Amino acid sequence: MDYKKILEDIYLEIRPYEKMGKQADYIPALAKVNPDQFGMCLESVSGEVYPFMQSDTRFSIQSITKVFALALVLSLKGEDLWKRVGKEPSGTAFNSLVQLEVERGIPRNPFINAGAIVLTDILLTELKDPDNEFITFVRALCGSDSVNYNMEVAVSEREKGYLNAAIANMLKYHGTIENDIEDVLMFYFKMCSVEMSCRELAKAFIPFTNISPFYYSGYKLTSSQIKRMNAIMQTCGFYDEAGEFSYLVGLPGKSGVGGGIVAIYPMRYAVAVWSPRLNSRGNSVMGIKALELLTTATQESIF
Amino acid sequence: MDYKKILEDIYLEIRPYEKMGKQADYIPALAKVNPDQFGMCLESVSGEVYPFMQSDTRFSIQSITKVFALALVLSLKGEDLWKRVGKEPSGTAFNSLVQLEVERGIPRNPFINAGAIVLTDILLTELKDPDNEFITFVRALCGSDSVNYNMEVAVSEREKGYLNAAIANMLKYHGTIENDIEDVLMFYFKMCSVEMSCRELAKAFIPFTNISPFYYSGYKLTSSQIKRMNAIMQTCGFYDEAGEFSYLVGLPGKSGVGGGIVAIYPMRYAVAVWSPRLNSRGNSVMGIKALELLTTATQESIF
Amino acid sequence: MDYKKILEDIYLEIRPYEKMGKQADYIPALAKVNPDQFGMCLESVSGEVYPFMQSDTRFSIQSITKVFALALVLSLKGEDLWKRVGKEPSGTAFNSLVQLEVERGIPRNPFINAGAIVLTDILLTELKDPDNEFITFVRALCGSDSVNYNMEVAVSEREKGYLNAAIANMLKYHGTIENDIEDVLMFYFKMCSVEMSCRELAKAFIPFTNISPFYYSGYKLTSSQIKRMNAIMQTCGFYDEAGEFSYLVGLPGKSGVGGGIVAIYPMRYAVAVWSPRLNSRGNSVMGIKALELLTTATQESIF
Amino acid sequence: MDYKKILEDIYLEIRPYEKMGKQADYIPALAKVNPDQFGMCLESVSGEVYPFMQSDTRFSIQSITKVFALALVLSLKGEDLWKRVGKEPSGTAFNSLVQLEVERGIPRNPFINAGAIVLTDILLTELKDPDNEFITFVRALCGSDSVNYNMEVAVSEREKGYLNAAIANMLKYHGTIENDIEDVLMFYFKMCSVEMSCRELAKAFIPFTNISPFYYSGYKLTSSQIKRMNAIMQTCGFYDEAGEFSYLVGLPGKSGVGGGIVAIYPMRYAVAVWSPRLNSRGNSVMGIKALELLTTATQESIF
Repeated sequence: MDYKKILEDIYLEIRPYEKMGKQADYIPALAKVNPDQFGMCLESVSGEVYPFMQSDTRFSIQSITKVFALALVLSLKGEDLWKRVGKEPSGTAFNSLVQLEVERGIPRNPFINAGAIVLTDILLTELKDPDNEFITFVRALCGSDSVNYNMEVAVSEREKGYLNAAIANMLKYHGTIENDIEDVLMFYFKMCSVEMSCRELAKAFIPFTNISPFYYSGYKLTSSQIKRMNAIMQTCGFYDEAGEFSYLVGLPGKSGVGGGIVAIYPMRYAVAVWSPRLNSRGNSVMGIKALELLTTATQESIF
Repeated sequence: MDYKKILEDIYLEIRPYEKMGKQADYIPALAKVNPDQFGMCLESVSGEVYPFMQSDTRFSIQSITKVFALALVLSLKGEDLWKRVGKEPSGTAFNSLVQLEVERGIPRNPFINAGAIVLTDILLTELKDPDNEFITFVRALCGSDSVNYNMEVAVSEREKGYLNAAIANMLKYHGTIENDIEDVLMFYFKMCSVEMSCRELAKAFIPFTNISPFYYSGYKLTSSQIKRMNAIMQTCGFYDEAGEFSYLVGLPGKSGVGGGIVAIYPMRYAVAVWSPRLNSRGNSVMGIKALELLTTATQESIF
Repeated sequence: MDYKKILEDIYLEIRPYEKMGKQADYIPALAKVNPDQFGMCLESVSGEVYPFMQSDTRFSIQSITKVFALALVLSLKGEDLWKRVGKEPSGTAFNSLVQLEVERGIPRNPFINAGAIVLTDILLTELKDPDNEFITFVRALCGSDSVNYNMEVAVSEREKGYLNAAIANMLKYHGTIENDIEDVLMFYFKMCSVEMSCRELAKAFIPFTNISPFYYSGYKLTSSQIKRMNAIMQTCGFYDEAGEFSYLVGLPGKSGVGGGIVAIYPMRYAVAVWSPRLNSRGNSVMGIKALELLTTATQESIF
Repeated sequence: MDYKKILEDIYLEIRPYEKMGKQADYIPALAKVNPDQFGMCLESVSGEVYPFMQSDTRFSIQSITKVFALALVLSLKGEDLWKRVGKEPSGTAFNSLVQLEVERGIPRNPFINAGAIVLTDILLTELKDPDNEFITFVRALCGSDSVNYNMEVAVSEREKGYLNAAIANMLKYHGTIENDIEDVLMFYFKMCSVEMSCRELAKAFIPFTNISPFYYSGYKLTSSQIKRMNAIMQTCGFYDEAGEFSYLVGLPGKSGVGGGIVAIYPMRYAVAVWSPRLNSRGNSVMGIKALELLTTATQESIF
């Protein structure tokens, strides 16, 4: 498959969308990003890398970090995780409090904010030095030691993070989290603030294609666990647009409000795309379009 | 892959579950079915058939019929369908009215009852002789001319079908359906009353594995359309348990309250399983367990 | 108190509102009413009557009929009624299905549609000849033998009554109503179709001022029961605007989508007002304003 | 009316209920209160006082404080208050977050927690020395200079106040409150921690009977404003039991989770009752029963 050519063709086709949507602007650090950027990188399980345009520009991975957090938690707790979080798609916005109230503090899945806050709480309990161990894990996955938290972003998000603070308080009320609320929120926002490039993200997700044993920075996952993580990405990875993404793209993946999306073709490749302008549901306009065209052109989807 | 042996092994492993759960009993015709039955049949795209136990016993396919209805509607209307139905998982019970009210009459997806009632309405509008054309289509798919509606079941469901009548009235109120409410409900329940065996269901779903052009009884679907139907099954096929099924089994599929489940391994096989005892979410206890063991044993899932 | 002068002054003050709002138009019979009409009538417990403008023009009383139905049911069943209906304000639109689903078929109060449909069901069960007995009761209350159902309105409402049909089906599903759905809906719409003038309504509500023993057409209510009916009117009589009405007017009352409102000053008077133009919450714009000015001018409210 | 005798008779009648219900125990200070206490005090507008049993024992007034806060805010802001809070009954539990999310940060009324938190925010903005001015106002109303905050209770409530913290964060997210979240929560819990006896509460509510001009500690309310406050108490004063209280008792009032209830018979009297054991909706079991018997015995209700 000539992925280089395919990525070039995709770009020509999506250029008409380049001014559509609006970048996230709820914190200054995201608002000041130049919205007119595009990067993409596909890495195959055999190690071929197809970078395209700004594939080495780092951006705020935001919710994509939840996949790393889930991998760590599954490695640490296994199926016990599911006592505190569900695995069903939410049918509501990623930051809804209604579901939490109705279902008495059990988040629907680990990728809505409430669920990721529970993952964060578990990491705080289970890890000795959460800050270091998390970033070490991510660095091991992507092979870049310079990948790091952006503290300006994290602090800024905490300051404006009223809704996530509401969620964390609600979880605490229901006994779903056990650590100090401020500690949980700060670590949550730190994890979200990690900055990576498309090239680094694609490489970091190669282990989730399940081609070989997963063993990074001391953490192990079985082949079955990785499959199940992909299932969660498939059904819950795109907020209230998971069905649409599954329908149009047909690959498990995860998006972030920084404009990044990573998708996985199991046993074959991982692909990351980034463009800051978002649609009304918080997903990158050009990113989703690019991935739709990729699976249409290659006929490579899981279905 | 020695599917014959695998099915036998699976059965040994799931026997401890054989008395768990309770069959549907909201209408007499379903209540009087012997709950202690089990059938399974896997058919590969190359035509090998692996029947097991009561694989030729017909049962009420119930919601599995929604896949046939969706195939017909996609063939007739293409992407226009999505103006009247969403494609996101629902996050609520299959028969909830809350979502309809909040989202002003647009069902979340075609597999919750409200969505399937919209499919029914479209078929009534688009087909000249809906009763005949629908059953002819199903017969063409499974190759059995004796497959038919069970009118006793259909009439009995209509009599007790207050919740579906509530949904249909709500859809009518919002203008989402255009035909007479009674006509829609009666045809809906007729489609649900179709009786098929596991062997027939597995065969009927082979076209949805996407191995070859889809052309049945005059209706065509593109390869892309079939992929997308599978995506819908993956995210919405199991009521409020779609995430769980995706997590445990990792195949697109559809269940029915009669105890049947059909799943698809794209480009490889279709598999049907049937056992009337249901879990609290309306899915066959032994059926789900059997499919979980199948993908664990074969390592054949889409992830 | 010079009510004649007060009513005249009120009218001068509310004339600026005379083109505000829009009459109900969901059925032809209501849509064709001339919206620019206004009538009012206050009747004191000592029998003084203060008619003003079109106080003898009959209009569709619609939901005001629910007060008559509640009086009948309380007389027939007493406190047993509250096993099937609550008495809490609803916090949602009068025709919401969400609450019914969440609270498993128990309507929040007898004045939302679901609650009134339960009243209807009880009347069908308890009365031998519901049609005659209900209208006889209303005639006895207002002293006009020519008051009657408007069958054109009732039939027309049934034809378009999808939402109420959805509610009735939902109630039947939960076992809250026991009669045939069509019978219940038709009788419900008949009761709503009764036509009365402001003069007749004011007179009909005098017994609810609690000045003397209640005994009409064979039905009795205790003083305590009448007080409690007033409490229900106070907290639930104005759909999603009960708090606002209580705040501005400070009297128990009941409104209808035909533009009528009746309010009660216990032990003193009953007052009816009518003007077809409605605000966004389904209550008469000039009607509410007139009553607000009445209690402001007279300082006669229950608080 | 021989209120002394009536209170004695009431007590005999409610003694069978004296072990029903359970006191609030979510903070140690409330949990350690002896639950088997009962006090009541009726004060007429002419200054007659009818104390009964433990009418001089102080207890945590909790949500009753919201009436004082509302009076202060109405005095300071008048009708402008209603831009930030509604006046409709809520139809949900007093601490629900669902409504806030659905109605985008506007609390339904000033007596649910979210609404009272908005009152608190306004007081923080409008008063120069909120702590002193609030308690001075309450002292002026009840004529007891020793009435005060209980800081142990306030601090303890803040520590466990996850749900109110969730609500405050949600309000901040929607821009409904403007002060620092911690400042708002701490002042909110301080106001709730005020301790008063039944005798003091009855006296403090006399001004709300509207018998004479309201002018306390520099704050004024018009007669019309007081009537409207009573209307709010009537429709919203008892959490999810406002309708029931209105139905059984027929007086405007306000309850608190400390077991206190105050009710008002406009132009006649104020009555306070206290007993720590609560029903499932957070209202004093004996308190509600006592007030029901009071209005039954005296036939003095607003209806």
